[in-house]
Amino acid sequence: MDYLFSNRVKGLKPSAIREMFKFASDPSAISLSAGNPAPDAFPIQEIAKISERLLREKPIEVLQYGVTEGYAPLRRAVSNYLQEKHGIGRSFDGILITSGAQQVMDLATKSLVNEGDTILCEAPSFVGSLNTFRSYGAKLRGIPMEPDGMNLTALERALEEEKNVRFLYTIPNFQNPTGITMSLQKRRRLYKIAKTYHLLILEDNPYGALRFAGEDIPPIKSMDTDGLVIYAGTFSKVIAPGIRVGYCVAPQEIIQKMVVCKQGEDVHTNLWAQMVCYELLEHCDFGAHLQRLKSVYRRKAKVASDALDRYLAPRISYLPIQGGLFFWCTLPNGADMLSFCQEAVKRKVCVVSGNTFLTDETQPSSSFRINYTTPTDENLIKGIQILGGILPEK
Amino acid sequence: MDYLFSNRVKGLKPSAIREMFKFASDPSAISLSAGNPAPDAFPIQEIAKISERLLREKPIEVLQYGVTEGYAPLRRAVSNYLQEKHGIGRSFDGILITSGAQQVMDLATKSLVNEGDTILCEAPSFVGSLNTFRSYGAKLRGIPMEPDGMNLTALERALEEEKNVRFLYTIPNFQNPTGITMSLQKRRRLYKIAKTYHLLILEDNPYGALRFAGEDIPPIKSMDTDGLVIYAGTFSKVIAPGIRVGYCVAPQEIIQKMVVCKQGEDVHTNLWAQMVCYELLEHCDFGAHLQRLKSVYRRKAKVASDALDRYLAPRISYLPIQGGLFFWCTLPNGADMLSFCQEAVKRKVCVVSGNTFLTDETQPSSSFRINYTTPTDENLIKGIQILGGILPEK
Repeated sequence: MDYLFSNRVKGLKPSAIREMFKFASDPSAISLSAGNPAPDAFPIQEIAKISERLLREKPIEVLQYGVTEGYAPLRRAVSNYLQEKHGIGRSFDGILITSGAQQVMDLATKSLVNEGDTILCEAPSFVGSLNTFRSYGAKLRGIPMEPDGMNLTALERALEEEKNVRFLYTIPNFQNPTGITMSLQKRRRLYKIAKTYHLLILEDNPYGALRFAGEDIPPIKSMDTDGLVIYAGTFSKVIAPGIRVGYCVAPQEIIQKMVVCKQGEDVHTNLWAQMVCYELLEHCDFGAHLQRLKSVYRRKAKVASDALDRYLAPRISYLPIQGGLFFWCTLPNGADMLSFCQEAVKRKVCVVSGNTFLTDETQPSSSFRINYTTPTDENLIKGIQILGGILPEK
Repeated sequence: MDYLFSNRVKGLKPSAIREMFKFASDPSAISLSAGNPAPDAFPIQEIAKISERLLREKPIEVLQYGVTEGYAPLRRAVSNYLQEKHGIGRSFDGILITSGAQQVMDLATKSLVNEGDTILCEAPSFVGSLNTFRSYGAKLRGIPMEPDGMNLTALERALEEEKNVRFLYTIPNFQNPTGITMSLQKRRRLYKIAKTYHLLILEDNPYGALRFAGEDIPPIKSMDTDGLVIYAGTFSKVIAPGIRVGYCVAPQEIIQKMVVCKQGEDVHTNLWAQMVCYELLEHCDFGAHLQRLKSVYRRKAKVASDALDRYLAPRISYLPIQGGLFFWCTLPNGADMLSFCQEAVKRKVCVVSGNTFLTDETQPSSSFRINYTTPTDENLIKGIQILGGILPEK
């Protein structure tokens, strides 16, 4: 039987990272390729206690169908939290609980983008989101990254040149894969540009709470006086990813379309998980949990940067980080990044090659991404040491 | 700000049923409109015990990212179960765990259907699936229902007339909304027609295990020697819907495309829920649980049909059932179904009007759907009694 697939999926490939995830399940391999948060920071005891109580006191509520918009107490708690903590949410905004922030990308694209329309994104950017955009037949145009966020001159040029731009996708905090954080000044300029061009911004903030050094910078959504920003958040990095709970704050009109799309996609998000998130947010000391989590990440990032300094730098350079999950490493001029990554796999260390994150994967890249949060300290150091042995000494 | 939505979602409306679900949360209303399984049949104690053990023994596995295809032990357990119990699954088939069976409809449509392509479906059919098909810009053509399943002559006519038919959607057991089960003879003829026309069949079987009388009829997928059937199953009705776990068995090539789409949609299904389903299926007496569940449904269906006989029949006729969640009731000639349903809402009883389930909702229908599994016995009887009072006595 010859199957006819839809045009939108014909050219789609599985995410290189998700595929490596399978390779990484080989116990003798060292995976520095995942985007997994540190399991040492999962609030396991609290989740177990909450879960036991929910299934004892409100089992039917946990197990029966719920509304598509999400568990009402969680929606209120997240709204309040975002309002108080980040100044997010105005009278025209609504909130939707999603099955991970990935679903925000999906629902926003489904609601706003026709096949052939353009989505602007940082170059490089998170391949999971790029693949979602591709799966709706969107044309992608990359805006080059600079140390303080995307190049806004290049953004304006793209806005002049491209037709049917439906939104700009950005990860302003500890961007995936580069770890770069957009400066406050650039956020303000970006919002001004968005206003001028009636440009919607899809602001993806999975890592904002993982800042272990420096000062928080207000999200773009906090400046959104005009209903231009769709904000995506998630509990994957601050509670746990396996529970698949994210959320979206956006103008009510957009939320309504996303709700209809979600009805047809998975009806609603797993209720046990939503109720666990609610209890952690409202009835535990969530602030103390975040502090503990930050100290885990701070310590672990230090282990990684010490190893990077010792075994890789200066031949392989890397950007210092103040939060997030990744180090972005760049090979010296002339080195072949793809054969470097292949050699790493042969030596049973997995990193993600930089071209994976480009809008056109066939373009060259001299960088690769390292995740420092998933491996044990021992494997992290050993993995970086093995990477250091690949390049010949000068 | 004027938002531009994609063509595919412009005309989408929220599911009438999901919207009524909100109304039904008014505690003084009697909802006969949901598609909720009977909460008395949820295996609450078992889930609580399993959950406690999982979070104690394998917390990281429960809480960390998993693979998109689904929790491997669950995939194996479901494959074995379907093979042994229903003869489902051949060497060319693969299995994917989804966030409810609704996601199977979504992923199959996304993978197979271009905007403007045709999907054939039973008329009437489950509005949740119809809305998913609509959300990808599919054209719907309804095939009228008969007491033993869809009219196959009408199906052949449609196949001759329609261009770019991508698949046929059917719920062969205790169909939603009519409760009709397709006869074995028709299933065989349908498969033969599919072979002749190279027609894919999307077989949705949420209610098959809820048969409390009569004999099981083999699923169409069990006859699938040619890789024509995409089979959707779910734990929503046999365990609980709030956990959102379904599955799909289909030719590996189709599964692969669906996996890529799922990566972009929600990465993977909630792991706690997948592991709970696995433990219930493999390490509890799942057969005994199903027997208990059937006895709950058998008893409850008797309460409903007694009340229907007493208060509605013969003025309002209904189809007797041997399983599933619904009674399909039809008003006498000349009665106005929409004003009947509106009057019911005024009297605080919620049913779903028949036109909701049509490919063209503006077409007339003289029927409405009753769910008997969600309300208490008392409310079920009282609700039906109130419905009986709406039509004037002859």
